[in-house]
Amino acid sequence: MTSTNPTDFGFEKKVPEGDTFERQVCSDCGWVHYENPKVVVGSVVTYENKFLLCKRAIHPRKGFWTLPAGFMEQRETTEAGAIREAFEEANTHIRIRDLLAVYNVTHISQVQIMYRAVLDKPEFSAGDESLDVALFAWDDIPWEELAFPTVYWALHQYRSIKDQDSFVPFSNAEGDMLEKSFEILKR
Amino acid sequence: MTSTNPTDFGFEKKVPEGDTFERQVCSDCGWVHYENPKVVVGSVVTYENKFLLCKRAIHPRKGFWTLPAGFMEQRETTEAGAIREAFEEANTHIRIRDLLAVYNVTHISQVQIMYRAVLDKPEFSAGDESLDVALFAWDDIPWEELAFPTVYWALHQYRSIKDQDSFVPFSNAEGDMLEKSFEILKR
Repeated sequence: MTSTNPTDFGFEKKVPEGDTFERQVCSDCGWVHYENPKVVVGSVVTYENKFLLCKRAIHPRKGFWTLPAGFMEQRETTEAGAIREAFEEANTHIRIRDLLAVYNVTHISQVQIMYRAVLDKPEFSAGDESLDVALFAWDDIPWEELAFPTVYWALHQYRSIKDQDSFVPFSNAEGDMLEKSFEILKR
Repeated sequence: MTSTNPTDFGFEKKVPEGDTFERQVCSDCGWVHYENPKVVVGSVVTYENKFLLCKRAIHPRKGFWTLPAGFMEQRETTEAGAIREAFEEANTHIRIRDLLAVYNVTHISQVQIMYRAVLDKPEFSAGDESLDVALFAWDDIPWEELAFPTVYWALHQYRSIKDQDSFVPFSNAEGDMLEKSFEILKR
């Protein structure tokens, strides 16, 4: 059994020498556990006006639908990470078009970098982390069963610039879109 | 004395249960040291056609000029991080305009998120991490003494869209700009 929670290991919060912020520091050996925001890379993937969604096989939000996206790994680009995630979750090859959005999800310290991408062929299947993968026309998207607010933002923001060749990428939703997206978490 | 190198602590490389990638895992207690790409947030800051640069007081590249930028902290937005870095390094208050670029520096696993920003007043001074802070007209920028290739990219890409209200943010430099930027590292 492995653990990723520093408090299991006799860590204490203090400001390391020469630093500005409190960090988790091991009381025994002085190891400083720097925690940095994590980058999530993903994409709104389309094929002939349909949207590729994955039904999550893992927690959190198991059984809910999400975009192919996940934690960026070391020594890859954000684009390569988005391609890898689509391959892992949907056994599919996507082609990145351009940057759709940069989201800040501060309460979980995530920066989400989302791309527009396309499938050249409608070939995909559920990877290990997915229960199901499917293409949905806009009206058939399972809006009541989306996994995260940022999935709602990305789909709607994509929709708003759908036919444009170039556009200014989006950031966090505001107003109505933000409010509606929070409904997702009540389900 | 603190250490941040896992190899000092009896870590070994292996693939944790349910994972795809090799990680540093403590041989004694099973602690998994996940290493993720780090986010650097910063900005090209201008005041009346001049560019704010900071002379680094710390390694790496001590004594060379850089943009106000640094590692994003937990629970802040990318914009807030860029504002904080300018405050820490240049004792100044910047106003973020928009997203200038997203760079991937894969060999050090960094995602750099750079903004356009302005100073409303030319008030600044060297923070703890800077030897000097100054505003430079384009032709007076110390091109021979820039700290990093991405500083060169950001300044030139900024220059190319200078008067535009909106634009598609940049990614890594290519071709000539990329080659010239590598000259920096020979100095």
